[in-house]
Amino acid sequence: MPVADPGDRPLRHHGDAEVGTGLVDFAVNVYDGPRPAWLDAALRAGLDDAASYPSAGAAEAAIAARHGRDPSEVLATAGAAEAFSLVARLRPWRRPVVVHPQFTEPHAALLQAGHAVTEVVLAEPFELDPSAVPDDADLVVIGNPTNPTGVLHPAPAITALLRPGRVVVVDEAFMDAVPGEPATLTRHRDPRLLVIRSLTKHWGIPGVRAGYLLADARLVRELRDGQVPWSVASTASAAMIACSTDEAAVESRRRSGQIATWRRDLEESLSTMGIHHIPSQASFVLAQVGVGAHGALRDAGVAVRRADTFPGLDASWVRIAVRPPERNRSLLDALSALGPDALG
Amino acid sequence: MPVADPGDRPLRHHGDAEVGTGLVDFAVNVYDGPRPAWLDAALRAGLDDAASYPSAGAAEAAIAARHGRDPSEVLATAGAAEAFSLVARLRPWRRPVVVHPQFTEPHAALLQAGHAVTEVVLAEPFELDPSAVPDDADLVVIGNPTNPTGVLHPAPAITALLRPGRVVVVDEAFMDAVPGEPATLTRHRDPRLLVIRSLTKHWGIPGVRAGYLLADARLVRELRDGQVPWSVASTASAAMIACSTDEAAVESRRRSGQIATWRRDLEESLSTMGIHHIPSQASFVLAQVGVGAHGALRDAGVAVRRADTFPGLDASWVRIAVRPPERNRSLLDALSALGPDALG
Repeated sequence: MPVADPGDRPLRHHGDAEVGTGLVDFAVNVYDGPRPAWLDAALRAGLDDAASYPSAGAAEAAIAARHGRDPSEVLATAGAAEAFSLVARLRPWRRPVVVHPQFTEPHAALLQAGHAVTEVVLAEPFELDPSAVPDDADLVVIGNPTNPTGVLHPAPAITALLRPGRVVVVDEAFMDAVPGEPATLTRHRDPRLLVIRSLTKHWGIPGVRAGYLLADARLVRELRDGQVPWSVASTASAAMIACSTDEAAVESRRRSGQIATWRRDLEESLSTMGIHHIPSQASFVLAQVGVGAHGALRDAGVAVRRADTFPGLDASWVRIAVRPPERNRSLLDALSALGPDALG
Repeated sequence: MPVADPGDRPLRHHGDAEVGTGLVDFAVNVYDGPRPAWLDAALRAGLDDAASYPSAGAAEAAIAARHGRDPSEVLATAGAAEAFSLVARLRPWRRPVVVHPQFTEPHAALLQAGHAVTEVVLAEPFELDPSAVPDDADLVVIGNPTNPTGVLHPAPAITALLRPGRVVVVDEAFMDAVPGEPATLTRHRDPRLLVIRSLTKHWGIPGVRAGYLLADARLVRELRDGQVPWSVASTASAAMIACSTDEAAVESRRRSGQIATWRRDLEESLSTMGIHHIPSQASFVLAQVGVGAHGALRDAGVAVRRADTFPGLDASWVRIAVRPPERNRSLLDALSALGPDALG
């Protein structure tokens, strides 16, 4: 899906385009474990419900209860991607700002809606400096934790961006991977704040298209007015309800703890090999493996996510999905086999 | 989802809003029969695939083969509703025309995208008069067979609308209900023609969000550029593939024949009762039951679709979904019980 990027960059290149037959997948940031039985049962019940037109009302009520919000403050969406598109088309933004490096889809959605985008590019270690955002920005989009850097910005750094006449959008698509979610703004009520969440990664269901946003009721109403009718399928609503229960909360915490353990293992291996990487709080690690390594890894049967499509990063970086340590062998072997040139 | 309709009409009122607990549903135009086992199996396999990001490529190839088109001439969408939204947002239409009475969603999508809509309102018997469409219309939207009138326009009446500088959109969401599909334009190649189809009604899966459009490859590419990434869920793709097989074609023909039989039964009953109605080629019948009858039927436990939200119709009309004759008793009893005032 090309967008009118003045720099002609492939902003709609995503990890799913990197996987292929015979490749071990370290490119897609989806939780690497089986679907919980209760989620699978809910999805199948959602198919039974598909004989009727879908309604997201019950899903929005369940999500609201989970986050301590009013149902009027929740909008269910067909994945976070629909939420980005709704935000982009919401207003004739005068100066929309995207804080990079981050997931490029919000940027692409803004371009698709006809906006010129101002890029604020953070330098390593990629921590948020609120003063880097222009004062006249009326829309600021930031990821937390940020894809692909893995950096978790503290909540006060983000709320420092709030000001009159500006909407701040926080993409928390990977927040469930952070044990305890200390920096989440899901419970922070502010008419200028919009939090986007996704069920895709943590629950391993990218094919279901389930996400939602939390915002002031008035903002939610405006965004709902821009939505295509029935855009949330019955299976997506069923997943949102199932993933809002106490049972799901227990499993979510277990997964986030497991991801942290797996990530420590990966980061230690990278450190041992002398591969520079950014300390991550998410389910992936941004590593500087050197120009050419991405292709060499593919040749060795290992798909990692190229990072040069992220504004602010170059071809020396790749993003590596966190996997169970016993699955890391092929990756680590392939990394070891890279010459010093590649890692340079 | 309110839209900026200058007439403040509820254009986004649809049949699904009319059903409710304790009401017998004659409001929703979905095929009234069990889901085929092969379709249910495909949907469940689609859930198994949902651990990966969805791709509609295989679905588009299957649909192309079914309609004798090239895959580049097919765009899979999250139901016909997404297709209407993509068309509305495709261009800065100078004079978009919607031929009424028809399904109001294309009109609502145009308003939502900020366009002023010119209404061409056909008079009873609601047959298309191409000369009624203004010469300077650069977009014309028409349904065939038309919801809610049930009128099937002959293909030449629609192709007569084609001209340079104009896109003609034909909503064929109910075409599978017409035995043999004599008036379909799915195989009519013209760079100015766009045909929208849906799996929702004929296959009874409104909750899955599966539809598609057929058009010139260039037009398809432009529409694809406006799409939200991954908008077609893995279950929707699975349904499109399953409903494009020869086995599905056999079942489709069986269903269309059955619908025609059921409809004759309903129309005969209406005629016997002296209730004026429009001869239908679709899975519903537009009947003039009189002002007040809609509410009286609801009081009697029967939900029919109010028709006064369709431009060109008033509160004396309702749309009645075609059901198996043995299920019509409650409807016919309730209609019989209406006083002559209601039917006047």
